[in-house]
Amino acid sequence: MLITSKDNNRIKEVRKLLNKKYSLQKGLFVIEGENLVEEAIKNDLLVELFVLDGYSCNYEFNYDTVTLDVMKSMSDLKSTPRLLGVSKIKNNNKIGNKILILDGIQDPGNAGTIIRNSVAFDIDTIIFSNDSVSPYNEKVLRSTGGMIFNTNILIGNIEELIKEIKDKNIKVIGTSLKSSISLEKLEKIDEFAIIFGNEGNGVKEDILNLCDKIVRIDMNPKCESLNVGVSSAIILYYLYK
Amino acid sequence: MLITSKDNNRIKEVRKLLNKKYSLQKGLFVIEGENLVEEAIKNDLLVELFVLDGYSCNYEFNYDTVTLDVMKSMSDLKSTPRLLGVSKIKNNNKIGNKILILDGIQDPGNAGTIIRNSVAFDIDTIIFSNDSVSPYNEKVLRSTGGMIFNTNILIGNIEELIKEIKDKNIKVIGTSLKSSISLEKLEKIDEFAIIFGNEGNGVKEDILNLCDKIVRIDMNPKCESLNVGVSSAIILYYLYK
Repeated sequence: MLITSKDNNRIKEVRKLLNKKYSLQKGLFVIEGENLVEEAIKNDLLVELFVLDGYSCNYEFNYDTVTLDVMKSMSDLKSTPRLLGVSKIKNNNKIGNKILILDGIQDPGNAGTIIRNSVAFDIDTIIFSNDSVSPYNEKVLRSTGGMIFNTNILIGNIEELIKEIKDKNIKVIGTSLKSSISLEKLEKIDEFAIIFGNEGNGVKEDILNLCDKIVRIDMNPKCESLNVGVSSAIILYYLYK
Repeated sequence: MLITSKDNNRIKEVRKLLNKKYSLQKGLFVIEGENLVEEAIKNDLLVELFVLDGYSCNYEFNYDTVTLDVMKSMSDLKSTPRLLGVSKIKNNNKIGNKILILDGIQDPGNAGTIIRNSVAFDIDTIIFSNDSVSPYNEKVLRSTGGMIFNTNILIGNIEELIKEIKDKNIKVIGTSLKSSISLEKLEKIDEFAIIFGNEGNGVKEDILNLCDKIVRIDMNPKCESLNVGVSSAIILYYLYK
């Protein structure tokens, strides 16, 4: 079927999924491009697929064709995709023992980079605070390079989750430029939860108060701070090796 | 003086500086925002300053006021700045002994992140290959957080410069996902040149052939590669500590 109207009910429903709250409520998110669509099919999570008129598609999955205007109306990205799908959010909600927690991360590029770093360095659970950007935001997805389906992601109240983690005797490590403990002093442990904070403000004070340890990355004082995607890579790599 | 026309000759000259080739030829670049303008004044490199009509400015520097339209015409960024200046390019062209080389980096955000990482971890010379993005591109400048004036940057033919560096007995280290030497095996040396490659293709084969050593960062094979800004941070931090 060729869908030519942006007012088609299914197309309107896809557009609504671009809203974080609605997407989480429905347990669905929008994915763009071959890479993500293939991953969603592989993981048996794809529920709908739209293909730009004029292109064909060889997946064993029923799809609808849409006009350029209709495709554009569903996409948040600058370049209009040839393929756009709706995927289920994989929700197992189990917390592992190599945990990364994001406290108020706002920039989609940073969130995507951190997800990619987490897959690279064996993090088994990524927790986004309720006030962080959605991990299912299209700009986040683009920065992860298809890694979203290789990770276990939770969104929730991180104060409560940190208490739950501490109850399991897993050490919780905060990060702060003002900490007196430099990364090299941090014992390399197998089970941990490491927290990274908002781009401007860092980890919130009341979250830092819950931590067993707080570390900093030493650097030349000429540089005020590092990008949070970069900091996470340095610390995750340290704990990985 | 209030400049109201985009066709004013000085305004047209600023716009021409947004072009990489022209900017390098003139030895001048456009800077936006208080942070960079202040740094340029501090370093005695500012040559012109334009302030958006309606704002005042307390610097001891002669400036001209411009209308919103005129300001917009000079800016490459989405948000129009209140302050926009023209700065001299600080060109000392001396190569130090902690060198970072960029081979064909294209993304301005990555270039900015790498400059910031370099300041953090004591790199004294950053070399951009001729086919890399300009370090004086406004999007690069925005990602460096004002660090551009704290670094020594060269742009040039990196094959020739690598030969020059090797003549000084400084070890040249390439990076490649396919290398058999993992980062931990790399001897921590005080003098080095480390090369990072293009986002899609990595360091060019003929550049890798000039290297004394080539390293990789170990990671979970589920993750195909890391962002180059992230990789540079991990390796520079390793060499710094």
